[in-house]
Amino acid sequence: MQRTDGVARTVAAFERGEPVLVHDAADREGETDLVYPAGSVTPEAVARMRNDAGGLVCVALSDAVCAALDLPFVQEVIDHPVGADHELGYDERSSFSLTVNHRETYTGITDEDRSLTITELARAAADPDAAEFAETFRAPGHVHLLRAAPNLVADREGHTELGLVLAEAAGLPPAVVVCEMLDDRTGRALSPDDARAYAERNGFEYVEGSDVVRQLG
Amino acid sequence: MQRTDGVARTVAAFERGEPVLVHDAADREGETDLVYPAGSVTPEAVARMRNDAGGLVCVALSDAVCAALDLPFVQEVIDHPVGADHELGYDERSSFSLTVNHRETYTGITDEDRSLTITELARAAADPDAAEFAETFRAPGHVHLLRAAPNLVADREGHTELGLVLAEAAGLPPAVVVCEMLDDRTGRALSPDDARAYAERNGFEYVEGSDVVRQLG
Repeated sequence: MQRTDGVARTVAAFERGEPVLVHDAADREGETDLVYPAGSVTPEAVARMRNDAGGLVCVALSDAVCAALDLPFVQEVIDHPVGADHELGYDERSSFSLTVNHRETYTGITDEDRSLTITELARAAADPDAAEFAETFRAPGHVHLLRAAPNLVADREGHTELGLVLAEAAGLPPAVVVCEMLDDRTGRALSPDDARAYAERNGFEYVEGSDVVRQLG
Repeated sequence: MQRTDGVARTVAAFERGEPVLVHDAADREGETDLVYPAGSVTPEAVARMRNDAGGLVCVALSDAVCAALDLPFVQEVIDHPVGADHELGYDERSSFSLTVNHRETYTGITDEDRSLTITELARAAADPDAAEFAETFRAPGHVHLLRAAPNLVADREGHTELGLVLAEAAGLPPAVVVCEMLDDRTGRALSPDDARAYAERNGFEYVEGSDVVRQLG
């Protein structure tokens, strides 16, 4: 029952706009990401991602939103041999789409700028047919877009899809921020035990991807 | 004389493989970047960039190296209206090229992985005609490449070009890592005063871009 409650508590935290910790699987990336509903991100949240997580600040969007906004997989548009034979150890392909900045940002990298880009991406994802995407954002920028698999965790069990399943369960637009938790001491991904301890110290929920898949997939 | 000595000390630090702080200009990005010779980067250096700087971890390469490796400006290859009308407030165009990972990385984001990608980029930049780039790296990845202006600071006075001028003066390959220093308290770029104080606390050199241009441009 504890695990069931964990997923329900994670969805409830997401509904309140709080960040959660999501571990994918030991036999996949073996990574825990700090995950926010994109619409809840503030400059302070971006600072927390920089300071406490340390990975790339990425916004995962649903396949339907990306289709409506004509956002491709970068891998498919790179006309360079470096884009061939992607051969990831943990999945068939990377989810990376374009990088963007909101047009009202200056450099695009500050906490204020990335926060604006991210919250406006949530707004675009809430109603992609009404979004004036190219008028609102420019590329390249400082926030990475990720394009999810069409059927989410039925197709792929990455943080991209796990985060969007949580957003869907929480009744939020299909836009979540994911940022990898890294470990200063080892130079590697933060261990699940250390990620769980971080979650406890900060009053955040920690959830296993396998439990999200089992209960919400 | 103090300023002259500052540039000379910065070049000397770079020769020793140490990071330096470079402020571009108050009327440009107004940003200070933590800058490393790419060949000197370690997993601990990547952790420092994450923890103390907080911006994107980018590797700037000279125009000649990018031409030899066929690395484009991303802006020129994005076939999407979001890539039109880039309208930066501080320059004519962004320097972003592709993102890459070394093929021997796993996720690509850990300190160990990014350090390997960065040091191997330095090796490729040292002899681009001999580099087997597409066999060594894959794209997309977790390290941003930046393509410098052909005549460096004579064309553009960004961190990309300033860093490469320092590398050239230090007799190093044209590959430097740049990462923006951000301020947790303000949500903006770290101020020059705070960046200078950080440099002093850590025994690093701090230099003004205008001094680099005047003495080395």
